[in-house]
Amino acid sequence: MDTNRLETFSDGVFAIAITLLVLEIAVPPQGTSLGVELLGLWPSYVAYLISFLVIGAIWMNHHAMFRHIVRTDGTLMLLNLLNLMLVAFLAAAFTHGADESLAAAVYGGTLAVLGLFVVAVWEYASRDHRLISDALTTDQARAIGRRYLLGPVGYAVATGFALVLPWLAVLFYLCLNVFYLWPKRSKSNADTRG
Amino acid sequence: MDTNRLETFSDGVFAIAITLLVLEIAVPPQGTSLGVELLGLWPSYVAYLISFLVIGAIWMNHHAMFRHIVRTDGTLMLLNLLNLMLVAFLAAAFTHGADESLAAAVYGGTLAVLGLFVVAVWEYASRDHRLISDALTTDQARAIGRRYLLGPVGYAVATGFALVLPWLAVLFYLCLNVFYLWPKRSKSNADTRG
Amino acid sequence: MDTNRLETFSDGVFAIAITLLVLEIAVPPQGTSLGVELLGLWPSYVAYLISFLVIGAIWMNHHAMFRHIVRTDGTLMLLNLLNLMLVAFLAAAFTHGADESLAAAVYGGTLAVLGLFVVAVWEYASRDHRLISDALTTDQARAIGRRYLLGPVGYAVATGFALVLPWLAVLFYLCLNVFYLWPKRSKSNADTRG
Amino acid sequence: MDTNRLETFSDGVFAIAITLLVLEIAVPPQGTSLGVELLGLWPSYVAYLISFLVIGAIWMNHHAMFRHIVRTDGTLMLLNLLNLMLVAFLAAAFTHGADESLAAAVYGGTLAVLGLFVVAVWEYASRDHRLISDALTTDQARAIGRRYLLGPVGYAVATGFALVLPWLAVLFYLCLNVFYLWPKRSKSNADTRG
Repeated sequence: MDTNRLETFSDGVFAIAITLLVLEIAVPPQGTSLGVELLGLWPSYVAYLISFLVIGAIWMNHHAMFRHIVRTDGTLMLLNLLNLMLVAFLAAAFTHGADESLAAAVYGGTLAVLGLFVVAVWEYASRDHRLISDALTTDQARAIGRRYLLGPVGYAVATGFALVLPWLAVLFYLCLNVFYLWPKRSKSNADTRG
Repeated sequence: MDTNRLETFSDGVFAIAITLLVLEIAVPPQGTSLGVELLGLWPSYVAYLISFLVIGAIWMNHHAMFRHIVRTDGTLMLLNLLNLMLVAFLAAAFTHGADESLAAAVYGGTLAVLGLFVVAVWEYASRDHRLISDALTTDQARAIGRRYLLGPVGYAVATGFALVLPWLAVLFYLCLNVFYLWPKRSKSNADTRG
Repeated sequence: MDTNRLETFSDGVFAIAITLLVLEIAVPPQGTSLGVELLGLWPSYVAYLISFLVIGAIWMNHHAMFRHIVRTDGTLMLLNLLNLMLVAFLAAAFTHGADESLAAAVYGGTLAVLGLFVVAVWEYASRDHRLISDALTTDQARAIGRRYLLGPVGYAVATGFALVLPWLAVLFYLCLNVFYLWPKRSKSNADTRG
Repeated sequence: MDTNRLETFSDGVFAIAITLLVLEIAVPPQGTSLGVELLGLWPSYVAYLISFLVIGAIWMNHHAMFRHIVRTDGTLMLLNLLNLMLVAFLAAAFTHGADESLAAAVYGGTLAVLGLFVVAVWEYASRDHRLISDALTTDQARAIGRRYLLGPVGYAVATGFALVLPWLAVLFYLCLNVFYLWPKRSKSNADTRG
């Protein structure tokens, strides 16, 4: 099976999850007439910005991974489904923990589990070149797998931090995302195949 | 007519229905500061996990069926529409019955009716090879049809159980889904055409 | 310009609008433990069924129309956008009128205006074969246009009925939809090009 | 990398953002039985119409821009993501400011920032023909860039007006959108490549 519908369906879930984030922005109380009061909602805007970038980065990563994965089967679809389940959960996770450190820890924990499923998708697809493109050598596939492994480890450590210093942990989540985006970017400049 | 837009539209409905599930997870009450209280919401998380896997399995099944269905007409689009109507209903069904046994029965009943419409789609499409691929023999088409028929029967029985033992019924729904996913998986490994 | 992204975007709006309908089904009050009480919500289920079929029929019609429209330009995209605006409005229209006759009239009025925009899309696209396929003769294009014109006229009449006999009007909306689906179906059996 | 999935994902976000607008239409209070009361909600309908056209115009503009952008890389995906973040924010912005002038100013400010990111996408993609089609000359690419620059400047000015004359500002937003749609339309008639 090719990966067309898997990608269309995944793009749909990502698009909905990322757009639903806007519903969580705090609405100013009735009768707000001063910009000053509106500016007081800034933590809500920062949370929106960070959540959008985090889910956006996961989508970009999913996109990059499925440029290498060229076939699919039932197991891969199931693993991908579990990935999407965590992405949708992430879209609601910021509100699922009423104080800051708990919210940040739930968010980090979700990212850590999601990272494990990303690893699972890659390990399943790349084993014996089962579902990945022949353009990738075994060594390249392994190197990608090692890089993916850093994600869940990093997020698990950050989750520990979150219980003490929530905003530092959130900053760390962002940095881990940038790490994933950065080398991928330079790589996609280098290889220009479709 | 080819099935492109029917699949895009269906993927959209599936993606939205499955992502909306996250809105039904119980939000912890304001002022929750202990992980212990958060853990108390576990039935809500289990319901999310099960609903996600059930709708995901239905999508995988839809995907598998439309690899064989290569043309469409108005009747098939209408039957597919009724399928999607039940999928969207399923996304809200867990909350539509305030106590556990009623909720599980409504859920099972919806799955049974959905199973009937899956049978209807397949019977209509496969009769005289009307809309299915010529790569499938008449015997193979009939074997697939018999397997689909097990779904509504199984779900109807489970719905009866639900009124007495709701969680056992939910477990049974999951098992039926696994049954549908399993042989499809091995099959899709065997035939690797697009 | 080809019509690919216009169709993807439209399919997205249709899929979301039709799935949002499920959010309008009345939720049973807390503590409902008898199926009898659940059955008392039947008008809510009937409204869901009808709304789903009506929007589904409009999607099927959109699909059929864009099999003939093979190119697009800015004007057509704008007219299509106004169509989609009314489709999304339709998804919320059942709740926008607190008593039955008003709700049915608002619904019918929205369908009548939508019908006018469907006519506008077709007239603009088919004039001098501007954007439609050459496979269609001028006479065929005109015949399709005449059939589309029946829609807004029929819905306007039904809207008048709605103020007096709301459920009869809703039945009439359904019949008009069936009329649109029926001949299209036989036609799509006859011509099997993509 | 080609732009297929970037466009599918963007279309998804646009479709959801534009359809969510309907959820913001004020619901008539329970017991409304006169059309007169329903008509009293007209500002809510006008806001829906304007928001739908504004987001629709941004989508059409995105569509037009990505007919010229034929390749993508990580940086472009990130810039596009920031665009989508503002589009989703726009879908909720009308309610984010409880009085009229503040709401109109927030809306205008969001459009101005969005305009800056549109400029950023184009400047990044067109520099040295990095990601745009060779069918476009350097002069044409620069002319398009200059036209995009008018957007954020115009919206910033309109935002200033909004604080004093909110409805005039909203009218001005619409005019700016029409300006962007107009010449693009005539252009897409002239060049008919896919």
